Amino acid sequence: MTDPTHETDELQLPFGFQFSGIHCGLKESANDLSVILCDAPSTAAGVYTQNLVRAASIDWNRNITPTPSIRALVINSGNANACTGDQGVRDNAEMAATVAKTIGCEPEQIATLSTGIIGHPLPMDRITSGIQTALAEAGSERQDFLNAVDGMMTTDRFRKTHSQSLTIGGSHGVITGMAKGAGMIGPNMATMLAVVMTDWYLPPKVADRVLKKAVDASFNCISVEGHTSTNDAVLLLSSSGGRPIHQTEQIQAFEAALTDSCIALARQIPSDGEGASHLIEIHVRGTQENREADRIARTVANSALVKTAITGTDPNWGRIISAAGYAGVDFNIETTSLQLNGHGLFEAGQPIPFDATVVSDALSSSFTSLIELQVGSGPGQATHWTSDLTVDYVRLNSEYTT
Amino acid sequence: MTDPTHETDELQLPFGFQFSGIHCGLKESANDLSVILCDAPSTAAGVYTQNLVRAASIDWNRNITPTPSIRALVINSGNANACTGDQGVRDNAEMAATVAKTIGCEPEQIATLSTGIIGHPLPMDRITSGIQTALAEAGSERQDFLNAVDGMMTTDRFRKTHSQSLTIGGSHGVITGMAKGAGMIGPNMATMLAVVMTDWYLPPKVADRVLKKAVDASFNCISVEGHTSTNDAVLLLSSSGGRPIHQTEQIQAFEAALTDSCIALARQIPSDGEGASHLIEIHVRGTQENREADRIARTVANSALVKTAITGTDPNWGRIISAAGYAGVDFNIETTSLQLNGHGLFEAGQPIPFDATVVSDALSSSFTSLIELQVGSGPGQATHWTSDLTVDYVRLNSEYTT
Repeated sequence: MTDPTHETDELQLPFGFQFSGIHCGLKESANDLSVILCDAPSTAAGVYTQNLVRAASIDWNRNITPTPSIRALVINSGNANACTGDQGVRDNAEMAATVAKTIGCEPEQIATLSTGIIGHPLPMDRITSGIQTALAEAGSERQDFLNAVDGMMTTDRFRKTHSQSLTIGGSHGVITGMAKGAGMIGPNMATMLAVVMTDWYLPPKVADRVLKKAVDASFNCISVEGHTSTNDAVLLLSSSGGRPIHQTEQIQAFEAALTDSCIALARQIPSDGEGASHLIEIHVRGTQENREADRIARTVANSALVKTAITGTDPNWGRIISAAGYAGVDFNIETTSLQLNGHGLFEAGQPIPFDATVVSDALSSSFTSLIELQVGSGPGQATHWTSDLTVDYVRLNSEYTT
Repeated sequence: MTDPTHETDELQLPFGFQFSGIHCGLKESANDLSVILCDAPSTAAGVYTQNLVRAASIDWNRNITPTPSIRALVINSGNANACTGDQGVRDNAEMAATVAKTIGCEPEQIATLSTGIIGHPLPMDRITSGIQTALAEAGSERQDFLNAVDGMMTTDRFRKTHSQSLTIGGSHGVITGMAKGAGMIGPNMATMLAVVMTDWYLPPKVADRVLKKAVDASFNCISVEGHTSTNDAVLLLSSSGGRPIHQTEQIQAFEAALTDSCIALARQIPSDGEGASHLIEIHVRGTQENREADRIARTVANSALVKTAITGTDPNWGRIISAAGYAGVDFNIETTSLQLNGHGLFEAGQPIPFDATVVSDALSSSFTSLIELQVGSGPGQATHWTSDLTVDYVRLNSEYTT
């Protein structure tokens, strides 16, 4: 069973960007170095990992974003450049400087992203010559975009992209993104990365604000095993040649569309979770505050017992209800109800009769398992996505030896 | 490889208690009903699950403890009597009333514990006749105690007991405990339970205070998959016929010994974690506050990537360091060092050279894996215990269908 969300067929590329992805020798054979070039100085905003242990690229980007003058983003896979000390900081600056020198700008106009093994210095000779090759090959065709997507992948089994076009304030534009990640995977193969590009123009502060909100409702609501990596980052690039978005209602429309794009990209990550046989989507409703619903959804999503129940297509309401119960949120079990793939299992504090075979069959026949938990009548709600926990997940993560 | 901590050979039974364990038909064949009788009204204190979804027995005990007048504890396995509504509350009260009537006291002098499947009513006819049989057979021999231990087990693979004798304030006494649990296991086979008995006499408020402290450093520091159950409980029974403990230094000595007992019992639970091939012991030192060290240790213990690395005997420092990094505690990576089974892997923010084969062999040849993380020079510290995550864990928890 495969998840229907990963479609590259309907890609629409935003104006104002060029793409490239090549193999420079960080990985055995696949693409491992990508660049995204802005035709003119553009807006860039970012949301970064909260991990105390951060890659050099994360600190670099935190210093330069939000900015109105980004010129390029360079991404390498195969090496996270994390836990590499001062050498790592110098190497990251050199990556940016190499791009800047070649295209003619300041290093601070270049964002950097890295993903891969941690604790090993970057082989800078390969990076430097790879950057030259990638820049020489950049283009604005569909294949150029896909090459760039490939260059950021590590153990991903499929490309993660999403594209939408819509009209805001009378002008037509595109929001298109790429993402990578399948859990914090491999030995130290960390990281969830995403880059979303648009040919609307947003000022840096606006871009920063709308990206944070969109990420809160999307990338911050997914997990594979709940391990925040050293390199997680989501970047928004907004072309300065694009139609400007200024008015409040235009910004709101853009934020809603950006959130949709981020959700569409984000849910592909647990869909590709290592060994995953199901994507689990968890809706929690009825709390007073959204953050209470968020906390319950997050706790259910992180429960190994809930995940393994879904793996076994077992309509095990007890694991879900008791996980909600230890989330640290005060709700009334007497007003709590639970549906699994649309089938009612629990109501008003007690299990209700259901045909276990029918519900189990429903779990078997759908890649996405939908857990709907209503815990009261308040306006608070949240949605989280996670992957199930399979024998293959454990095999992949225990049978590797560094 | 088996863990050396589960030893029933050196059991010393405290004076003032009688024990019984029988099969009454809640489970297929093994013991499923136990009683612990106090020769005279005794002190009882308890620490209970924080889960919002609680078994009837938990609410019952919360109402009656701490108390100076407990007469008996009745424990059933095979059925948790949780998510059973008003019927469950009535059934639990009837369990207590049946014991009380038979031995001649008030129902509120009887504590109750249940463990097993949730959402099903207790078969009260079997419970009621079982209580009569159990009370008739109670005795103070070693085998009586072991029968009672068996009656509280669910999917435990081995009995969990601990016993120590020591002298406090010139008088000799015993602290002896029993526990059950192997994760929140089976379908809804919840629960960690423990009962610790002593023939020193402590007033109820003192018992309550020292038990809370002992549990904080022991049962609250273990996890299998981090799932807090609906029925978790630890009870302390202190014989009223025993030598009284009053003075501050005597209470401190007792608290230290009780903590040792609780730790010895608690660590047997992840040792018996479903499918576990290693017990993982995590020491965190060098924070300002103990609670910061606790938070880091808990986060490392709950990381599926750390657990699977230990399963694979992989000295994967990156997974441990990055898990510490997202614990939400501010520490300086530049002063952080990591040892695994005594081998240094990481120092001052960077990996140090080590022989991976030697460390992997050390992990292979010991049931207990020791992770020592020093994150600074502060006085804060904490120790946690967890089990590794194996293919067998996932099989056991996904291949069952309710």
